[in-house]
Amino acid sequence: MAVVTEFTKNMASEHAHLVVPTSLFVAVLCLCIVIGHLLQENRWVNESITAILIGGITGTIILVLSKGKSSHILTFNEHVFFIYLLPPIIFNAGFQVKKKQFFHNFLTIILFGVVGVFISSSIITAGSWWLFPKLNFVGLKARDYLVLGTIFSSTDTVCTLQVLHQDETPLLYSLVFGEGVVNDATSVVLFNAVQKIDVNRLSGKTALRVIGDFFYLFSTSTALGITAGLLTAYALKTLCFGRHSSIREIALMVLMAYLSYLLAELFELSGILTVFFCGIVMSHYAWHNVTDSSRISTRHLFAMMSFVAETFIFLYVGMDALDIEKWKMSKLSFGNSVAIYGTIILLMSLGRAAFVFPLSALSNYMNRHPERTSIITFRHQIIIWWAGLMRGAVSIALAFKQYTFFGVTMDPMNAMMITNTIIVVLFSTVVFGFLTKPLISYLLPHSATNNISRRDSKTLKEDMNLPLLSFEESATTNINRAKDGLSMLIERPVYTIHFYWRRFDDAYMRPIFGGPISNLSPC
Amino acid sequence: MAVVTEFTKNMASEHAHLVVPTSLFVAVLCLCIVIGHLLQENRWVNESITAILIGGITGTIILVLSKGKSSHILTFNEHVFFIYLLPPIIFNAGFQVKKKQFFHNFLTIILFGVVGVFISSSIITAGSWWLFPKLNFVGLKARDYLVLGTIFSSTDTVCTLQVLHQDETPLLYSLVFGEGVVNDATSVVLFNAVQKIDVNRLSGKTALRVIGDFFYLFSTSTALGITAGLLTAYALKTLCFGRHSSIREIALMVLMAYLSYLLAELFELSGILTVFFCGIVMSHYAWHNVTDSSRISTRHLFAMMSFVAETFIFLYVGMDALDIEKWKMSKLSFGNSVAIYGTIILLMSLGRAAFVFPLSALSNYMNRHPERTSIITFRHQIIIWWAGLMRGAVSIALAFKQYTFFGVTMDPMNAMMITNTIIVVLFSTVVFGFLTKPLISYLLPHSATNNISRRDSKTLKEDMNLPLLSFEESATTNINRAKDGLSMLIERPVYTIHFYWRRFDDAYMRPIFGGPISNLSPC
Repeated sequence: MAVVTEFTKNMASEHAHLVVPTSLFVAVLCLCIVIGHLLQENRWVNESITAILIGGITGTIILVLSKGKSSHILTFNEHVFFIYLLPPIIFNAGFQVKKKQFFHNFLTIILFGVVGVFISSSIITAGSWWLFPKLNFVGLKARDYLVLGTIFSSTDTVCTLQVLHQDETPLLYSLVFGEGVVNDATSVVLFNAVQKIDVNRLSGKTALRVIGDFFYLFSTSTALGITAGLLTAYALKTLCFGRHSSIREIALMVLMAYLSYLLAELFELSGILTVFFCGIVMSHYAWHNVTDSSRISTRHLFAMMSFVAETFIFLYVGMDALDIEKWKMSKLSFGNSVAIYGTIILLMSLGRAAFVFPLSALSNYMNRHPERTSIITFRHQIIIWWAGLMRGAVSIALAFKQYTFFGVTMDPMNAMMITNTIIVVLFSTVVFGFLTKPLISYLLPHSATNNISRRDSKTLKEDMNLPLLSFEESATTNINRAKDGLSMLIERPVYTIHFYWRRFDDAYMRPIFGGPISNLSPC
Repeated sequence: MAVVTEFTKNMASEHAHLVVPTSLFVAVLCLCIVIGHLLQENRWVNESITAILIGGITGTIILVLSKGKSSHILTFNEHVFFIYLLPPIIFNAGFQVKKKQFFHNFLTIILFGVVGVFISSSIITAGSWWLFPKLNFVGLKARDYLVLGTIFSSTDTVCTLQVLHQDETPLLYSLVFGEGVVNDATSVVLFNAVQKIDVNRLSGKTALRVIGDFFYLFSTSTALGITAGLLTAYALKTLCFGRHSSIREIALMVLMAYLSYLLAELFELSGILTVFFCGIVMSHYAWHNVTDSSRISTRHLFAMMSFVAETFIFLYVGMDALDIEKWKMSKLSFGNSVAIYGTIILLMSLGRAAFVFPLSALSNYMNRHPERTSIITFRHQIIIWWAGLMRGAVSIALAFKQYTFFGVTMDPMNAMMITNTIIVVLFSTVVFGFLTKPLISYLLPHSATNNISRRDSKTLKEDMNLPLLSFEESATTNINRAKDGLSMLIERPVYTIHFYWRRFDDAYMRPIFGGPISNLSPC
């Protein structure tokens, strides 16, 4: 045999150090995809649960193979999460969102996604501040309680969205989806705002400052995302990449979207909001400037990246649940630990109920026009409440960001907060997730069967009432219809905004940035 | 203003440490794409040169802004190169290769790509061993000279391929492309084999062992790649993902391809060869088992990833050329340095000439049948020789792997080897690259104009002679034609292999793994 020198040995072992975990993760990801597909028709299981369970099994195998030393091979790094995994998920959400429905229900979505998080986060903070010491769980500082509220206010609606269908219950789908995105962004922005608070001088002014910070971040991040999207659309339109450069078109879209996220992070804005609005603008303008094959490819590419990132996160959560080092650090008895988990889950449900039902009533009151179909029924309200009970990747990432240093913590308090978060995420995803399909088929029994004919007539009616929201119809028809219904416009300010926006869009934006109106392409 | 605690400051600065270079790189990549597109019609410039020049300009700007401290913001890590950047480039090469032409010229390609590298590498090693001490460049060990040979034997044919057209000069294109891929793999495999040599006991046996190691690596790596590709094809065929799961299909293809590369690296095989053959098998079987939109998407996705990775590498090379820390370490005078570069470039040209012309003659002798059109004319030989004069990303990566530790070196000897490599890569890419378009239009003056009609008749003739190579024709036609030309088959062993392969493929492989033959899909 050839003599292996010390140098090559070092090189090889160090190389293997990188390659082994990556190979294992990629292999398990493949397994997740195949098993997830096989279980697709299953009534109880969804993809998140599959990934978590496979992660748990893999973790157990590694635990046994490493003789109880460690259950995970990659240390969670929240930078990896925020820089590589989250952007594709959120961008894809913005890119694939049905803009018509989203903007139609914009006010309600903002109510749920922004005001809701403030309410839910206050209740969780206050509740845990009051209850945790009674359960022998002491040692958390004021900031920890505030952060706790934001961590457990970010929902994961993927489970529910897998069950709901965009065509069957468009209103419900758009509310749940929209709230999920805005809620993620709000939690992260609020999390960052809370980090800046001086906890020693809490007062009414602090709350105002948090709200002020929040609106500043919200508006600047949105503006940055829209600018990036428009810039891409303009570049694609004027450069006319043409038939032979699909690759360049796709690369430019991917890179510009990612750049917008990175710039937002660089300027300490909310990358989530930026990349979400960048996705919306890109699908509204830029997407129309590329070739047909690029359109198909980008849609699939973005969806695939988002899918892989999501699966990766859930896989990791499943693996990390078995991290015995963190478990050993816990000083609480088993009973007390369970009581803590129970308290958090109870507070989450209460905090969510405290805004879903009142805000739904408010939304119904605002939309009280007799012909309106966007009334949120009580059954819908229960589904919205339920959909947001699951906690997911963002909660985990925020917890790691707050309580660990590069995924490692030596402090028992911090380790317990991490295990708390993981247990709550696991429990809510697996148990609540299991119950989602049966619950929805109980609450909306006819949604899959005779609903289609009803939906058709409904959609027709809706279209008659809301012609201005259609992004695919021609401008002239819209304007004519709008003139007939001028009295309607005065009654409903949202539609007036939409009307003027459409006029502006067709007259100025689309000719510059591209879109279905401009038929005379110079390419 | 809110008080910023020390903790958040640390978090932020550490976050920025990751975000700043990434943003800059992504921004410059976008710029490269746009400028590369604008310069597409230019006679002299190609994408590699654009990326290198933009990298150089960016490097200069950073050098000025950082007041002469550093010109680059990312330290080159050869692990990043071998684990993230190289796999998509090679996989895409395998996936997009015209299999018909590739296998048609398989023997000649292997001659150039394998035997050629051995010849070229020996000449460069011997020449530098003899000449470097005469130029005051002493201190290199025996292994360094051996490694030098392999580093400067890996060619970069991207420049030439951008000028040649697959439809106009199919033989030439397939030879240059095929050699480029096989050559990359051979260099890396040879590099790894050389690492294992005990330099103190060099003998005839050592050479035999290197060759033995080489064939072992070649065969096992190829087998692994083919297995991974077949497994993917089988999974896609039996699972029948169907219309609604394009995302899963694409994700599975991407992940399995990547897994094959990682496994090869894990078992210390050649990942390049593995992923190349995985790409070929996937495009031959797996690609036919997915939906139409997945087909378009995967083609674009793979091409885009390869494109971005290549641009990234050239950008980096341009930036790194200004790394003054390495320049300062050099102890040679300017004149001697230039002499060293000149020697390397001269040896490269000689080493290449030493195998292109003799091996072309050998290939022509083997294909001496009068009707054959795959005779390599002298002009073609010059183009093949020229195409391989450019040195690229693989050379850089191998040099970093050998002479640095995670992109950093303190040894003046090693620093000089790195600067040597970068200068040679820069010079050959920019200067030889600039001359490629004019040279080819001088040697093949009618290739762009009246060649199309000639090519058509040629292709027709070729198809008459070589029906067995057509991967798109039906099996029965092939077999009938083959029976007529049995005497021809005996004369030409390669075609006999093809004939039986096609029969085997249609009878056993395609029904199991999928492909255009099997019309009765159970999905």
